Order: sequence, then structure tokens, then C-alpha cells
Amino acid sequence: MADMTVGIIGAGRIGQLHAEYIMSMSSIELKGICDIEIDHLKGSMMEKHVPVITTDPSILIEDEEMDAIFICSSTDTHCYYIEKCAQAGKHIFCEKPISFSLEETKAALRKVKEAGVHLQIGFNRRFDTHFSKVYEAVSAGKIGRPHIIKITSRDPEPPSEAYIQSSGGMFIDMTIHDFDMIRYLSSNEVESVSVVAANLVDPCFQKYDDVDTAIITLTFEDGSIGVIDNSRRAVYGYDQRIEVFGEKGVVMADNERESNVQIATKESVTLDHPKYFFLDRYKQAFYREIQAFARAIIDQTPVSCTGEDGLEAQRLAIATRLAWKENRTVLLSEIE
Amino acid sequence: MADMTVGIIGAGRIGQLHAEYIMSMSSIELKGICDIEIDHLKGSMMEKHVPVITTDPSILIEDEEMDAIFICSSTDTHCYYIEKCAQAGKHIFCEKPISFSLEETKAALRKVKEAGVHLQIGFNRRFDTHFSKVYEAVSAGKIGRPHIIKITSRDPEPPSEAYIQSSGGMFIDMTIHDFDMIRYLSSNEVESVSVVAANLVDPCFQKYDDVDTAIITLTFEDGSIGVIDNSRRAVYGYDQRIEVFGEKGVVMADNERESNVQIATKESVTLDHPKYFFLDRYKQAFYREIQAFARAIIDQTPVSCTGEDGLEAQRLAIATRLAWKENRTVLLSEIE
Amino acid sequence: MADMTVGIIGAGRIGQLHAEYIMSMSSIELKGICDIEIDHLKGSMMEKHVPVITTDPSILIEDEEMDAIFICSSTDTHCYYIEKCAQAGKHIFCEKPISFSLEETKAALRKVKEAGVHLQIGFNRRFDTHFSKVYEAVSAGKIGRPHIIKITSRDPEPPSEAYIQSSGGMFIDMTIHDFDMIRYLSSNEVESVSVVAANLVDPCFQKYDDVDTAIITLTFEDGSIGVIDNSRRAVYGYDQRIEVFGEKGVVMADNERESNVQIATKESVTLDHPKYFFLDRYKQAFYREIQAFARAIIDQTPVSCTGEDGLEAQRLAIATRLAWKENRTVLLSEIE
Amino acid sequence: MADMTVGIIGAGRIGQLHAEYIMSMSSIELKGICDIEIDHLKGSMMEKHVPVITTDPSILIEDEEMDAIFICSSTDTHCYYIEKCAQAGKHIFCEKPISFSLEETKAALRKVKEAGVHLQIGFNRRFDTHFSKVYEAVSAGKIGRPHIIKITSRDPEPPSEAYIQSSGGMFIDMTIHDFDMIRYLSSNEVESVSVVAANLVDPCFQKYDDVDTAIITLTFEDGSIGVIDNSRRAVYGYDQRIEVFGEKGVVMADNERESNVQIATKESVTLDHPKYFFLDRYKQAFYREIQAFARAIIDQTPVSCTGEDGLEAQRLAIATRLAWKENRTVLLSEIE
Repeated sequence: MADMTVGIIGAGRIGQLHAEYIMSMSSIELKGICDIEIDHLKGSMMEKHVPVITTDPSILIEDEEMDAIFICSSTDTHCYYIEKCAQAGKHIFCEKPISFSLEETKAALRKVKEAGVHLQIGFNRRFDTHFSKVYEAVSAGKIGRPHIIKITSRDPEPPSEAYIQSSGGMFIDMTIHDFDMIRYLSSNEVESVSVVAANLVDPCFQKYDDVDTAIITLTFEDGSIGVIDNSRRAVYGYDQRIEVFGEKGVVMADNERESNVQIATKESVTLDHPKYFFLDRYKQAFYREIQAFARAIIDQTPVSCTGEDGLEAQRLAIATRLAWKENRTVLLSEIE
Repeated sequence: MADMTVGIIGAGRIGQLHAEYIMSMSSIELKGICDIEIDHLKGSMMEKHVPVITTDPSILIEDEEMDAIFICSSTDTHCYYIEKCAQAGKHIFCEKPISFSLEETKAALRKVKEAGVHLQIGFNRRFDTHFSKVYEAVSAGKIGRPHIIKITSRDPEPPSEAYIQSSGGMFIDMTIHDFDMIRYLSSNEVESVSVVAANLVDPCFQKYDDVDTAIITLTFEDGSIGVIDNSRRAVYGYDQRIEVFGEKGVVMADNERESNVQIATKESVTLDHPKYFFLDRYKQAFYREIQAFARAIIDQTPVSCTGEDGLEAQRLAIATRLAWKENRTVLLSEIE
Repeated sequence: MADMTVGIIGAGRIGQLHAEYIMSMSSIELKGICDIEIDHLKGSMMEKHVPVITTDPSILIEDEEMDAIFICSSTDTHCYYIEKCAQAGKHIFCEKPISFSLEETKAALRKVKEAGVHLQIGFNRRFDTHFSKVYEAVSAGKIGRPHIIKITSRDPEPPSEAYIQSSGGMFIDMTIHDFDMIRYLSSNEVESVSVVAANLVDPCFQKYDDVDTAIITLTFEDGSIGVIDNSRRAVYGYDQRIEVFGEKGVVMADNERESNVQIATKESVTLDHPKYFFLDRYKQAFYREIQAFARAIIDQTPVSCTGEDGLEAQRLAIATRLAWKENRTVLLSEIE
Repeated sequence: MADMTVGIIGAGRIGQLHAEYIMSMSSIELKGICDIEIDHLKGSMMEKHVPVITTDPSILIEDEEMDAIFICSSTDTHCYYIEKCAQAGKHIFCEKPISFSLEETKAALRKVKEAGVHLQIGFNRRFDTHFSKVYEAVSAGKIGRPHIIKITSRDPEPPSEAYIQSSGGMFIDMTIHDFDMIRYLSSNEVESVSVVAANLVDPCFQKYDDVDTAIITLTFEDGSIGVIDNSRRAVYGYDQRIEVFGEKGVVMADNERESNVQIATKESVTLDHPKYFFLDRYKQAFYREIQAFARAIIDQTPVSCTGEDGLEAQRLAIATRLAWKENRTVLLSEIE
């Protein structure tokens, strides 16, 4: 009775999150979940409500009833599954980043194009209530032509050493969200990138040729400039703020706090902390990105965050890493 | 496979809301819905997912599988259903107010007590993130002994004339939430009530011997004092703020805004509006009150908002109406 | 070379404050200061810059060069000096309250009227940046017709026992500022007053038949309603907030904090405290009220806070005390 | 009877401001003012209260009674007067920047050192209530070791074309305050500077080989990083915010608004604008920097913002211009 039937490849944290949200939507049926390991799903709501739970992805991809596949497996498998899904004529929702290699990404996007299927990349923040209002204000011309776009993006705590080792580095793993957001807010392409970066949070990052703290500056084709500041550890919570400053004003989105409660005593006046966990902070955004994807598939309209957006964010991550390594301004045109 | 099976009597706005939330919870099965009119449920998610849809409440109440019934019908039928459910040994979740008559309420509560079933009243605001943090701060002694408790509670727009006519008046219909909240925050009983009230929003209220604007002052048994200000129309949104001031400080909960976005231009600096619709503002609270009810039933622990709480709020509403009518301080002990 | 020459009677805290501000203004010359005790002025800037320092008030009042006299002596001497100044044809700036007796105040105001001199009462809060913006917004019709006017007014700490004993009680000593503010914001006269009051801060207040905590409700002639909440001790600082709610919106003034600094750590997110001391919080207001007085005298325009305003605030304080004593609503018309 | 006697060279906007503040302080006597043009002082408070008004600076510099001279003349004359004052044994307060030439500045500082007089540079923002609280929080270790220091510094409107032409460029004229602030907050020296800059506000800047919009990134010797964003025109007001993010938290200072008033209507929720004019925003800071200077002279303690601080800020401005011109990271060690 649902309008659309989907499957999920990859039942890790993010795959399970998508599963939970899809199960709560009446218009989408979650028919199958696949992972190399499925024991951890025993006794879960998924086991109860999802007809097919399998370790064989082809069972989902080749299922005639499937309209779309959510690719939530590890990054190094994304392109393989994108191509398989495209060949099978399935629409695709793929987590970020698309891959660690531009060649792989471009090849996968070509297959998507040939197959004529939809591909949406999981840049959930575009669907955040606060950030989408900022986007709307900018689009509506409320602040005129943008001059400076600023993103503050700091994780509450660093990932595990194992994660760091295979993350591809902070720029591709974490900043990629900010690269997408800054392009989104700018409605313009980046021309060049520079960066100052440091290893201040944990020596572990240096061990894997990575950084944990950075300020990235960007120039856009329209002459405006952007800046992203990142840290792998903001002990006070997940710090996610954006600001677009322009000829006619400024629009800013502040953090979401745990609550709007204020306590004042002789000793202190306290507010609640910013939300700490990304699934809590972006809960609605994760929900809304799936809804937007479903709407696009059902209504046959373009998806709002395409494979090309994923590619561009990946190019920016690669350019930033190069800018860091060579301590110079890198033109985006150098990254092919 | 759910831990608990429930039915809903009354499929109006609030009944449908509860239905939606219950359907999204894996631990509760919604087996039946009943209303005198059920045509409006055609094509809804309820029709798809709820096995029994009926106009006969006894089908739900007498169903052996039912653990609990949600009473969401019109206020004048609450006590009748409470008694029926109690007789059938069903736990009960009943919307506010319990009734318009103290005698009826008391009789119903006696039946509940005799039957030994749980009864939770739908004072959802106790489960609001912000307000429950205020309660916790007060309970934890953060502000010492409370001296003044303030509630600002203003609806975004007045109800329809038909609603006003059968509402029982602002104090029992709208302020009853604030009466419960002020008792909850105080952890103390009210001793006396005074009020200044006015008809400033719409002449319609006066037509039905009602008011639309009021400031209610209360004294508590521990000597502290309280104040509630109400309006039936705050054009800028649903204005819901609380403040507990005490010997060691103050704790305040501010409104939830549509977003945390700020736009500054030459002309103005604007914030987003407070959330406008009560279902939006208290969305999580509605969800969490059901979870708390289910947890109490499943774990066999006391519910957090009892029939006695409903009775006390009702007494406060009646006392306030009397205080208004006779322009004097009314002792709560006068209201039996 | 100044435009106006003035003297000050009473060199206590408030008299010295006025002296300091007047000395910093080029348009006013402070020619004399008088007090029954003048030893404490030795070595002060006043000793250096004020030509006449005396224990004899008539030296100031009878000085032909004096344009105006600031009466900053104890409340029980205000009316005596008002009459003396009026007789001598001097304009008068008098601290609040005018007196503890309505008869005395009325007699003094008659003398002022007969003499045709200006009299401004020291309700400095009318000149506060934040509060005067609220007044302007209301006057400009931004929120339409006012429905509810709320004042939160809490001192940081109670005065000394000696002060309490001779203060005349909280309503005339402290709330009198709020009575003036609520009349000012309403642009309307009060019709009736009720109050719930308590002794929660310090038993000392009860000893002198006084209260330290109160919620005062008022009705205005235009049908709108008001509420003032007072406490003699807000440990977190001087809590001074106002709110005017009306048919088209609400306007609010929040506290001034020590700074706009926020510190977020793992343990807490803290703001700075509200300013603690009234001279700090209302520093600019004290300055601006003198400027407004001088401008009125020099330009021969009406003063902005008249003797009649002082009388009305005094009547409200007396009505509130009566309402408290008799636990009933008191009509302002009862207070003659 | 004052503790210190001073003169002012330069009676433009900033000179007059200092004059006004000094005249209101009892501990400092303003004995003389000098400018090449003095007609505009006719009828001012200065004419009334300052004994010597002259076009000959040597009259002030050679006056035996003078303890200190405030140099508020045009930048190109600063070093000349610094040397003259030092030779005459006068303490010196000099406006920023010291000069446009590092050689001149260094030569002047040598003379100051030889003469053993105090020299304070007019980086008034160090004395701002909000910013000095940020500094104190950082110094007290509240946020641990700093990782990222961010300054947002945007003027409300660009200066006149004449001013732009002789300003020395945005980095030396406007950013110099931010360079000093970032050094101050860091308590550390800058190692390298990069910049992306643009001409977006007014073509006039380009005409004089200048920019109006920039993001400057800096690395510090301790490995931390900094970022300054500048614009010559923030139409919503003077935007002055700072943020220090570190291992244990973050401390931020937000803008000062015209008032704390909020107005909510159906159409909008508005706050007041940030203060617009720098003399209004930094009023107290200008006052307090003079007090700090006077205290240092009188108590014979070090001044808080030295000639070396002025030199370092100047080096940063020069490095940033070079980084812009050559589109590369400039090591501060390159600037001698």
C-alpha cells in the first residue's frame, strides 16, 4: 500500500537510522536490509518489520519490487553498489562521501547518468530546519549579494583511532559536509582553496597524516569569500553554526540547545549545552532528507542533492588536502 | 509482539494525534479506535494499520486483549468511559479536563480506585523537555525554596464560537494546564486564588459568560505565591514560558522558536517566531506522555500525572471562576 | 557660562550621585550643596568644584542665582523643602516618594502650582534606554491596544534593618518605581489594586509590619490589566524586566548583563549576571533624567515626570498596602 | 589639585573625544590643546575649560608642568611628535597606527626607550568590558589552551574617498585593531599570515589599491590558529565579535545592542540593532584606556599596551598586505 519500496545496504549506525525513519513513514515500505554481518539485528524492530534480512546485496538489488536502494555501507564500497544499482535500474540514496577517488566517483556518476536513475547524496544538513531557513533567506535576496560565508563546524569528540585510520582524513570525512553546505549557501562554485591546519586535539591524527583543527578559506567565482573552521573536539557539544554576510545584511543560524532553560544563581547564570550527538542535532534533517528523496522519486522531480554535488564536495576535500600539504592556494581547476 | 495493547475512544484531533504516536511505537499495539463518526478515518494510516475501527466503544472496552484505553472523546463523556473502563479492569489515559463537575470527577476516581487500575490525565506539558528541566532544577534544590512561580500561557488565536460555547470557560478549558503546571512546579498545594480578568480579545467570550484575558494569583500552603497570565490570542505565536524564583536563584524556560535563525539588515534584526501550533510546540511532550504511561503500566509503577492531579486542577479552575464572579479571594477549601 | 545654576539639598548616596552627574554637564552649574552633616564631603570632588557647601538649606534656597533645587534629603523632609523652594520661586527636582502622607503631598503640590514652578519627581526608570524604547513602541501603536502589562522588579539584596524600619514599607519604598512605570507604560489610570504578599526573605520585614515578596494586580480604566512582581532579594542580581502585551503583539525589555560574554565548557554554558547595583543598572537613566529636567527648565517646556505622577504613585502604594491589610480589591477612588 | 597634567596634540574627532573624557576626570588636568587649525574649538567646552589652546605644539611639549602628551594628530606626524615628547621627557599616549613605516616606528620606539618615558598606544578595544572579560577568561585557563581565535570586525559604513586615499589601506587602518586584539587574546606571537581579500563594497577601494572585504588567517608560535573577517560595510551596524576556542571550551563576546528590547508581532520578532557608531560602542573603552594610562603614569607601573604592541600590529598589517599582493603565506619573520 506504500508508494515506494526500498532496501538498505549496510546496517551500521547510519543504516539503522535510515531504517528506523523509513519504518515510521507510511509512504515507504522497507522491504530489505543487507549487511555482511546481520547478527546484531536480532531482536530489533527491523527483524520484526522488515521482510528480507540478508547478507547478499544482490537479493535486494535484483528484487523487481525495489524502487530504490539506500547505500549505507563503508565508503570504499559505495561506487561498486552505485554501479550495481544503476545497472538494475534502481534509484539510489548514497551516504557521503561518494568515494575516496575522483576517478571512481566520476565513473559511478557516468553509470548513473546512463541508467537514468536518481541519485541523492546524504548531505543531510541541507534539510536542517535552521540551515534551510538560512538558505531561503539568502535565495530570497534578504541579504543581497553574499560577501562572506562562514561555517563553524566542530565535533563534540574525536572518533576512535580505528575510524581515524580509515576515514580518509578530516577534510573528506568531516569537512565534506561543510564543503557541501558552503556551495549550497553560495549557489556558486569555488575557485580556490587555502587552509591553515593543526594537530592540537590528539596526537593520533598526526600518526595517520591527518589534522584535527583547521581554518579553510575559499574564493567563489562571483568574487565572494568563504571560511570554514573545524575542530574534532568541542567539549561543550556539537558546534554547528553558519553565517552569510552580504551587501544588505547578515543571516545567522545558531546552535540548537538541549533546552531553552536558564538558571541564575549567585554563582552563575547558565544555559543548557548545545545538543551533543549528531543524530540528535540533525534528527529532523535525517528524516526530511528521506522524505525529499521519496518525493522526488514518486513525483519524478529532480533530487535536491545530486551526485554532482557529491563530486564537487569531494573535489573540495581533495583540493584542501593538497593546499595543506603544499601550503599554498589551490585552484579548484587543478583537481580533475 | 508489543508489550501492551490499547484502544482509543474518540477520533478527533487529539485522538488521532495519540493514534499516530502509538502507531510509531514498537512497544504498544493500537488494536482499536472508536468514535460516533468514523467516516473521516477512511484512507488514513489508521484504517490501514488499526485492526478494529468501530462506533461501539464496548467492543474496545470489553476486548480481553486490551490493556488500556485512551479516552479522547468530548469532556462530558469522560467520566462515563472512565467508569466503564475501570469496571472492565482496563488502565486509563484520559484527556483533560476530567469533567465539568466535581461530583462526577470524584465518583469516577472512586471507581478507578476500587478497580485498582491506573489512570493518567493528559497534562502533556509535564513531559515537555524545557518544563521538565525546570521541574528537575527546582526539585534538585538549585534555586532553594520557591518564592514566586510565574506562568505565561497565551494561545495564538481564540477557538471557534462553537468551541467557546461548550468549553466550560477559559479557566477549565485552557488555564487548567497552567493550574496543573503550577502545582507540579510547586510540589505544594494551593491555599487561595484571586483573579483579575477581562474580555479584550473578542466580544464572543462575554456572550458566553467567559473571559479571554486574565491574571490569576495564588498562594501556596508553604507561603510561596504564584501568578498565571493568560490570553486567548497572542498574535505572534503560542507563548509558553515559566519561571520559578526562589531564595537561591531563578530558573526560566523560554519559548521554542521556529528556528534559531537571525536576520539583520539596515531595517531590522529579526528572530523567528515562537512555534504557533500547540501540536508543534508540544509534539515531543505528547509523545513522551504516552511513553511514560506505557512504562508505568508495563513496569507496574505509579503514573506520573494521576486522577487526583486532574481533580485538583479542576478545583482550581472552579475556584478561579468563583473568584472572578465574586471578585474576591477564594480559599481552595471552599471548593469541595 | 552654564545655562542653569542649581543646588542640592541632601548629600547622601543619591544626592552625591546627582552632584557627580551635574558636575560633568557643561550646561548646569552646581553652585551649592547642603546637608545636616557635611564632614563626609571633605576631600571629595564636590569640595573642589562646588562653591557653597553648607548645613543651612536657606542659603541655597534664597540664593538669587539658583534656578533650581534638587531635594535629595530624607523623605519626611521633602514636602517642607518643596514648599520652601516653591515660595522662593525655584524649580524643583524631588526624589521619590514625595512623602508618606497624601495630605502633605497634596499641600505641597498646591504650593508648587501657586508658585508656577516646575517640579520633576525622580522616577529615573522612565529615562532608561530599554524602558523608554518599550514606551515608544507602545505609544507608536506597535502592539496595538495593551491588554496585559507586566513588571518584574526584584532588588539584589534587602536594605539594612534601620532602612527597613523607616522605609514606609516595600510598596511605598520600592514598588513606587513600578507603580510609576506601569502608569507610564499604560498611559492610563489605575482603577483597582489587589495583592498577594508574603514574608519569605527575612523575618525582619514582618517585625516592621512589612513584606518582602509580592504580586500586585491592577485594573486600568481602559479595561486592561497589569501585574507587578516584587522581591527584596534576587541573589543573581538586580532583576528589572518589563513586558507590554497587546492586541497586535508584545514588547519586552530584558535585563542588562555585566557583559555579553558567554563561556561554554564541558561542565556548563554561562552568561554574565544581570547588573547588580541600581546605580550601575540605571546609570544612564539617572544622567538622562537630569538632562531632561534641565532641558525643560531652560526651554520652558513641561517636565516629563510631574508632581501629579508622584502623587498617583503614592496613592497606588497606599491602596496596595490597604489591599494587603484587608485582603481585598481596593478601588483607587477609595484613596483620597 | 589633579594628580597629572596633560596636553593633546590634534583636535580632530579622536582628540576631542579624549579631551572630553579627560575633562570629566578629577585626577587629570587637561592644560593644553594644540592643532594646526583651532577655530572649530570656539564655543566648545574645551575653550571654556582648557587654559592653553594653541597652534604651536612646542608650547605643550616644552611646558614644564605637562606630565604627558596625547598624540591624536594625523598618522604621518605621530613619530615626529613621539620623538619630540620623548626628548622633552614627557610620557606619551599615541593613537594607532604608530606610523606607516616600520623604520620610522622603530626609530621612534628607540627614542622612547632612551628617554625612559611611558608610551601607550590607543588600542582601546583591550579596555572594552566584553573583550577584557574574554581575555580574563582565557588567562584564567577557563578554556584551556587556545586552538582557534576568531574575530569578526566589520565597520557599519565605509569612510569617505578622501579618507580611504590616505588611510594606508584597510589592513593598517582598520584591521590593525584586530591584529592587536588577536595578539592580546593569544598571549602569543604570530608566525605566519595568509589572506583572501576582495573588493565588494565600493569600487573606490580598488581605485586606491585597497580592499574592503577580507578573511585573514594566522598561525601562532604555539601552534594555534586565528582568523579575522573584515568588511568595510555591515549595513546592520558595527559588528564586533570575538571567540576563543580551546581544549576545554569556548568563550565568546557578542555585539552590544542599542537596547535589550524585543518586539513580537504577527509579522516579525525584532531585536534592536548592534550599536552603529564606534564612539558609542567603545565609549567605555575609550574612557578606561585613559584611566589605565593615567594610573600607570601616576603609579609608575608599566602601561598595558606598549609601543612594541603597536609595532607588532603594524608588522602584521604589512605582512597581510604582502600576503594579499603575492597571494601566499607570509612569515612574520620576513617583515623586519
